[in-house]
Amino acid sequence: MKNVMIVIEYDGTNYHGWQYQKNAVTVQEVLEKAIKKVTGEEVNLIGASRTDTGVHALYQVANFRTTTKIPVKNLPYALNSVLPDDVVVVQAKEVDDSFHARYSAKKKRYRYLILNRKFPMPTMRNYCWHIDYPLNIEKMKKAASYLVGTHDFSAFKASGSSKTSTIRTVHDLTIEKNEDFISIEIEADGFLYNMVRIIVGTLVYVGLGKIKENTLYDILNSKDRTKAGITAPSEGLYLIKIIY
Amino acid sequence: MKNVMIVIEYDGTNYHGWQYQKNAVTVQEVLEKAIKKVTGEEVNLIGASRTDTGVHALYQVANFRTTTKIPVKNLPYALNSVLPDDVVVVQAKEVDDSFHARYSAKKKRYRYLILNRKFPMPTMRNYCWHIDYPLNIEKMKKAASYLVGTHDFSAFKASGSSKTSTIRTVHDLTIEKNEDFISIEIEADGFLYNMVRIIVGTLVYVGLGKIKENTLYDILNSKDRTKAGITAPSEGLYLIKIIY
Repeated sequence: MKNVMIVIEYDGTNYHGWQYQKNAVTVQEVLEKAIKKVTGEEVNLIGASRTDTGVHALYQVANFRTTTKIPVKNLPYALNSVLPDDVVVVQAKEVDDSFHARYSAKKKRYRYLILNRKFPMPTMRNYCWHIDYPLNIEKMKKAASYLVGTHDFSAFKASGSSKTSTIRTVHDLTIEKNEDFISIEIEADGFLYNMVRIIVGTLVYVGLGKIKENTLYDILNSKDRTKAGITAPSEGLYLIKIIY
Repeated sequence: MKNVMIVIEYDGTNYHGWQYQKNAVTVQEVLEKAIKKVTGEEVNLIGASRTDTGVHALYQVANFRTTTKIPVKNLPYALNSVLPDDVVVVQAKEVDDSFHARYSAKKKRYRYLILNRKFPMPTMRNYCWHIDYPLNIEKMKKAASYLVGTHDFSAFKASGSSKTSTIRTVHDLTIEKNEDFISIEIEADGFLYNMVRIIVGTLVYVGLGKIKENTLYDILNSKDRTKAGITAPSEGLYLIKIIY
């Protein structure tokens, strides 16, 4: 029995997120079906991150156990030949039996893409958040600096969240502007439910002047979701790295 | 009667190109319908470039005549409110009566995007040409240098082309690599049918070693389409500028 790790990219537009659901198509499901077609085996595919509906991945990691005779290095080609073209396996390797895509992950990194100009861009309509009012980047950077470090992120957690501890460590939070696009990257040891999208929505409110950049510390301390900004839409969010 | 110029962006994936066709949806048609809804007038919308099925535009120009009372500066908002979200009007202004989007154009510029890595990228599947074998950029640049200037481009013209003169002036042809993406930009006073895509297909053959970089002059002189490379697929092509 081999433990196989795969790296996957996907366009989340047409999926109800990563995790298996009864009445909706998910990325986990199409991958499990592809593995079944290729190996003949029903596997339980463990994903590092349970991305939401519409969220994209440039680097998602998953693992499964198999007795297949297909050489592991050939698995990406075999799986891609039966996968829809919005899900692509870019790497496969055999890993130690103890490897668990979710529990072994030390850090995760997300990117959020904003288009900041007067009109939306048709070719990017499923891949960014369009904001027509000019954002103040310097204020957003200042606000972001308060969030780096170990904090109780209760104020940045969706109410449906069932995680027991709300303490997380944000290792990096960078904001970069490139022509009309603003890219926000966040790396942490873990994320509460919708945490990245609430952080982005709050930073956007700072950029619009709706929230003062120097109140982020107070928002964190309030542990009150209603003090933070809106939840940014899913289409601008990309899972870009899992660090083990 | 005002002569109105509009600048349009579109995602060409779901359209049979720019130009009106009887049994297929085109960008010209959806724009003319939007203008009808907003102004009540049936107009003949003249586009600067008749882009093919699947080709995108980051900057297409068109003009039409209207007696509408709607202020011209408000037209983008009015039109976008009734357009599908893969076509966006980003600018509108009144122009001299003599302005003709196609005949007044001095130069056009296109970009072609290639993804050069082992596996395709799901989020870019409709927006680039995936080539899995490494391309030699230096050879492609050398080959491109032969095409700049005024030449008979018969060898780079699809057979269905009805243009009378096959002489065109390529003012600029640049190739840039950025991580796994290769961007080829071509600016000319005009283009023969499929000329950009045949130039790109030929440069890719040079990058693959199938055509020698120093034979481009001979290919031009042969005026023989069969000497050039394949026609690159439409999804990697973007109209990016019209110069008047």
